[in-house]
Formats: sequence, structure tokens, C-alpha cells
Amino acid sequence: MTLEADGRYFEDYPPGAVFEGGPVMVSEAEILEFAQRYDPQAMHTDPAAAARGHFGGLIASGWHTAALMMRLFTTHFLSPASSLASPGIDELRWLQPVRPGDELRLRVTVTEARRSRSKPQQGIVHSFAEVLNQKGEVMMTLKPTSFIRCRPAEQTLSRTA
Amino acid sequence: MTLEADGRYFEDYPPGAVFEGGPVMVSEAEILEFAQRYDPQAMHTDPAAAARGHFGGLIASGWHTAALMMRLFTTHFLSPASSLASPGIDELRWLQPVRPGDELRLRVTVTEARRSRSKPQQGIVHSFAEVLNQKGEVMMTLKPTSFIRCRPAEQTLSRTA
Repeated sequence: MTLEADGRYFEDYPPGAVFEGGPVMVSEAEILEFAQRYDPQAMHTDPAAAARGHFGGLIASGWHTAALMMRLFTTHFLSPASSLASPGIDELRWLQPVRPGDELRLRVTVTEARRSRSKPQQGIVHSFAEVLNQKGEVMMTLKPTSFIRCRPAEQTLSRTA
Repeated sequence: MTLEADGRYFEDYPPGAVFEGGPVMVSEAEILEFAQRYDPQAMHTDPAAAARGHFGGLIASGWHTAALMMRLFTTHFLSPASSLASPGIDELRWLQPVRPGDELRLRVTVTEARRSRSKPQQGIVHSFAEVLNQKGEVMMTLKPTSFIRCRPAEQTLSRTA
């Protein structure tokens, strides 16, 4: 599973394959900026109010954590050569709050991969993605579905030559 | 269901209640900025490459659409007085690509609401959220779960006085 992300095609995502990457650092400034724009709740935008609140301090919007997950997912899982689209995500879970200074890593495990019946040149990859912090604690999980292009025939030939 | 969002508590989210709001406009500049940071795939970051690609033009990252959904969700559904947290989202579906110039609206329908057994001063609200474009087409759907504080006893009394 050490193929560079750039060269991956559907055939490189068999069930059980694990892809990892990171970290990405979460700054207070970025937490505030994202939340002011997209999730302006005091727990995400107001450090003083957040300190008095339920979480005892500023926490990142769950959608910010999801966006940072996607940055890692594009870098360490998907390939520009073969990533086509995603129809959606199942079971997105925010398990622990992400705080300023946290360093997030991504681990993606392929759970199912099948060739498309209607579009034989692509496949459907189901995976389980975990976002971990610097202590190895699981902060967020989700089950993405990805449409991935199959390896072109000529490339398959050249690889077996 | 016309209570101002600021004054809503758990009791104001009965099953069947519908909350609507918007629009928010999606600019090309914001699509590019979000994607360069969080989802740097050519379909989201490179208008020329996107024009030649599968979608025939630049489309917003699905996570950008989700973030814009959250902006509408905080304004038109949640209340700063009672919104506590969310444990997660089920069945996030990207049904149609969002493009520059689209105007997105949100419609949220409460599907289930129950008082927490372990924390009787809060409730668990399940909903079905739809993001619509300016033509009324459904672009994205999801099933959020929200932890919502119950109305304080003194407020209940003053309302019945």
C-alpha cells in the first residue's frame, strides 16, 4: 500500500488496504476564521464564552474538522488521476472536541470495493476514515464512498511487460 | 414554527416541525478559496481543467456545501440559548453539484425528538436537512442529530402566566 497517491487507480484500493497521513495542525486563528464564516456558535467563535461553557474552552466546528479531514483525504488517499466524485458519507461521528494546537492525522481503511456495473471503467470504494489527534485518540470517524477510475488498459499492459 | 431562533428550546422542535431559511450565494472566489485550503482537486480549484472534466465546469467541494449548510443551520434552526452539541450526521448525500452563482436555501424537518434519559435537562433532536438551489432542486441532504437544552422551568412558568 505504498504506491504514491498520484499513481493510484481503483485496483489499488482492495478491501483491507490502509492509508495514513498527516499531521495537520489546528490553530486557534483558523478555528475562529472558519467558525465566523460557517458555524458562528460561541463555543467555536468566542474563547472567553467557550471557556465558561460545556467544553471548557474553544473547540473547532465539527465541519472544520471534516474539512481538515478532506485535506488529508485528498493528499493521502485519493489520486488526481482517478478520483471522480463522491455520492456521500455515512455515519459521520464527532467523538471528541478538537482544540487549538491539536495535530490531526488520518487513517483510511478500505471496507468494500467493487467495479461499477453501469460504468465498467470505474469502481465504487467504501472506506472507514478515522481522524486521530497527537495522542492517538480518535476524534472523528466517517464512512466515505468514492467513485474511482480503473487503471487504463495500456497502463496495465506496461506494468506486466 | 415561527418562534425566533434565539428563543427556541427542545420543546420547540416537535416531530414534523419545518424550519426554512436562506439564501446564501456561492461565489466562484469562495469555491476556489475553500477548495485550495481543504479540497484541492482540479474540479474545485481549476476552472479551465474543470470545464474539460466530468462536470463541465467548476463545482464546489461537497464539504464547502456542507459548511454553507451549517451557516444556514445555525441561523435558521439552532438557537444560541439551547444548542449544546452534535454527536454526528447520517446519510450525507451530494445529489447535484453546486456551481458558482448558485443560491442555496435550507429546509430542516424534525423527524424525532426525545428527552435524554441520562440528562433530563436536554433532548435529542433528529432531523432531515435539505439544501435547495435557486430552482428549488435538492442539491444535498443529510440527517443531523442535535443535543438541545430544554426550556428552563422559570421560563415555562412565565409563558403560562
